[in-house]
Amino acid sequence: MSLLVVGTTALDSIKTPYAENPRLLGGSASHAAVAASFFAPTHLVGAVGEDFPRKYINLYRRHGLCLEGLDQLPGQTFHWSGEYEVNMNNRRTLDTVLGVIENYSPTLPAAYTRLPYLLLANIAPDLQGHVLSQMKRPKFVVADTMDLWLNIARPAVLKLLKRIDCLVLNDSEAAQLVEEDNIVAALPRIHKLGPKYVIVKKGEHGAILSGPKGLFVAPAYPLKKVVDPTGAGDSFVGGLMGYLASQKGSLDKNLRAAIIHGTVTASYCCEDFGLKKTTKVKKTDISKRVRELTKMVSW
Amino acid sequence: MSLLVVGTTALDSIKTPYAENPRLLGGSASHAAVAASFFAPTHLVGAVGEDFPRKYINLYRRHGLCLEGLDQLPGQTFHWSGEYEVNMNNRRTLDTVLGVIENYSPTLPAAYTRLPYLLLANIAPDLQGHVLSQMKRPKFVVADTMDLWLNIARPAVLKLLKRIDCLVLNDSEAAQLVEEDNIVAALPRIHKLGPKYVIVKKGEHGAILSGPKGLFVAPAYPLKKVVDPTGAGDSFVGGLMGYLASQKGSLDKNLRAAIIHGTVTASYCCEDFGLKKTTKVKKTDISKRVRELTKMVSW
Repeated sequence: MSLLVVGTTALDSIKTPYAENPRLLGGSASHAAVAASFFAPTHLVGAVGEDFPRKYINLYRRHGLCLEGLDQLPGQTFHWSGEYEVNMNNRRTLDTVLGVIENYSPTLPAAYTRLPYLLLANIAPDLQGHVLSQMKRPKFVVADTMDLWLNIARPAVLKLLKRIDCLVLNDSEAAQLVEEDNIVAALPRIHKLGPKYVIVKKGEHGAILSGPKGLFVAPAYPLKKVVDPTGAGDSFVGGLMGYLASQKGSLDKNLRAAIIHGTVTASYCCEDFGLKKTTKVKKTDISKRVRELTKMVSW
Repeated sequence: MSLLVVGTTALDSIKTPYAENPRLLGGSASHAAVAASFFAPTHLVGAVGEDFPRKYINLYRRHGLCLEGLDQLPGQTFHWSGEYEVNMNNRRTLDTVLGVIENYSPTLPAAYTRLPYLLLANIAPDLQGHVLSQMKRPKFVVADTMDLWLNIARPAVLKLLKRIDCLVLNDSEAAQLVEEDNIVAALPRIHKLGPKYVIVKKGEHGAILSGPKGLFVAPAYPLKKVVDPTGAGDSFVGGLMGYLASQKGSLDKNLRAAIIHGTVTASYCCEDFGLKKTTKVKKTDISKRVRELTKMVSW
C-alpha cells in the first residue's frame, strides 16, 4: 500500500571535525521519503524555494517519489547549518533560515487524502495537524517530533498526540515530554497522552517500542564508523513506515519487523553525509543487513 | 561444572539522592559469586577483616558458596564509600579503605586449582594473574576490570589479557583501553591484545559480545526503577559464568544464552541496595525474566 510523508525538505550545511559539506539535500521529509521508497510507493508533501537545486528534484524522482505535493514557492529553501563534535553525539545549530516553510500551509492533492499510511515527519506540530485534518480515515498515522517543539509548541504537540496512532521520539525527548528520566517508566505516561504505540529512538543503542503487546527492544545495526548522523532518525521512521505499508497481516507483528528495517535503513544514512550513502543502497543491501542483525540478536 | 570466583569482598557505604546505606555487603566477588550461585556450585576466593559481619558470612553460606578460600585476616575489611547523582549514571567515590586487601596474595586451596571455570572478578590485575597462575588447565577464564587499573596498572592489565579467554569491561573502559571511542571499531583492537572473546557492558543499553562467531547484541532487561546500580556489572559476569558452568555443548552458543542470564541476574541487583534484592530472588524468577526478555527481542 502507499504512504504519504510530510515534513521538511531542506538544505543542510554540515560541519564535522573532519569535513564540511554545504547545501546537502536534507530535511525530515527528504530522509524519511527516500528511506520509505525502498519498500512502498511514497508521496512527498513539502515546500522548497526557488534556490532548490534541480539535481535534488531529480534525486527524488530517481527514488520514485510522487512529487505532486511538493510546492516550489517564491523565496529561499529552509536551510539548517550545524556542527558535530568529535564523538558525533553532540551537535549544535549554527544557523537556521526558515525560508518558504515559515508560512507554509499545504493543501493536499485530492488523491493524497485517501492514502492509507501517513507519516508526519518532524516539522511544526500545527502543520502536522493541518495535514492530518485533510486525510480521510488513514489506516495508520505516525508522528515524529523534536525537543524544539516540546520547548516552543508544547500545547500543539499535546493536541496532536490525541490524534495519532504512534509517536516516535528520541530518549531525551521522551524524558522531556513527561518529565521522567527513566524511559521504561516514561512510556506508560506517554501512552496516557494519546498514542497507542510509542517508539523511543536511542541512536547507536537501538530503539524501544511500547504497545498493546508489551515492549519490543531493538538493537541498532553496529557501525564501525559514523560519518554524519543527520537524518538518521528520519531515515529510521521512513524505513519503518515504508516497510509497514508494504506488509499484510498483524500490525503488532509487522511493527517489530518494521523497526528492524527502519534501523537498518538508518544505518546507511550515518555512513556518509546527507543522503549520499542512502541513495547508493539497493534493497538487497538492506535485506542483507537485516539478516546480519537477525543473527546478531539470536541465541 | 564448578566455578571459582576471585575478587573483592567488601563493605559498601552507598549514598543516593534518596537514601543512605552504610556498610552493605559489597565487592566484585560478593556480587559475582552470589549471582553465579543460582546456576552452578561456586567457590569464593577473597579476604575480609576482623570487622566483617557474621551475617554476611551467613548470607554467603545460604547461597551455597564454598568459603574454604575466604581468608579472614587481621585488620579492616575493604570499604568503599560512594555517592550517585540523580540519574544514577554518574557516581563518585567518597572514600576507599583498602584494609586487608592491600597486601593480599591468596594461596588457593588445592581442590580449587582444578576447577574448570575461573572468574577473575574486578580486583588488581596482578592479583588476578597470581590466582590464574595457580590453576591447572582451567576450561574457560573470564576477567573483569575497571578504569582504575587501566589508569594505574596498564602493563599488568595488558599482561593478563594474553592469558585469558574472555575480557569483560564497560563501554568507556573499552574505549580507554584501545583509545577508540567507537565500540564496534574498538573490539577487533581488543582481540589483538589477547582475548578470543570480548564482552562490552553498556548498562541499561545491554551488552555486546565479540567472538569467532561474530557479534552478539544483547539488550538489558528494561527496569522502571533503578535503586542502586552498584555491583550490577559484577552480577552480570557472575550470572554469565554460573550459567556457562551449568551448560553442556557449544561454548559459542552457550555464551549468548549466558549473557542473557547474566543481564537478567544483574537487573535484580539494580532494584535495591547492595545484594538486598538479589538475595531474595529465586531461580524461577530469573527464568521468568529470561522468558520475558526473549519475547521482547523476537520479531
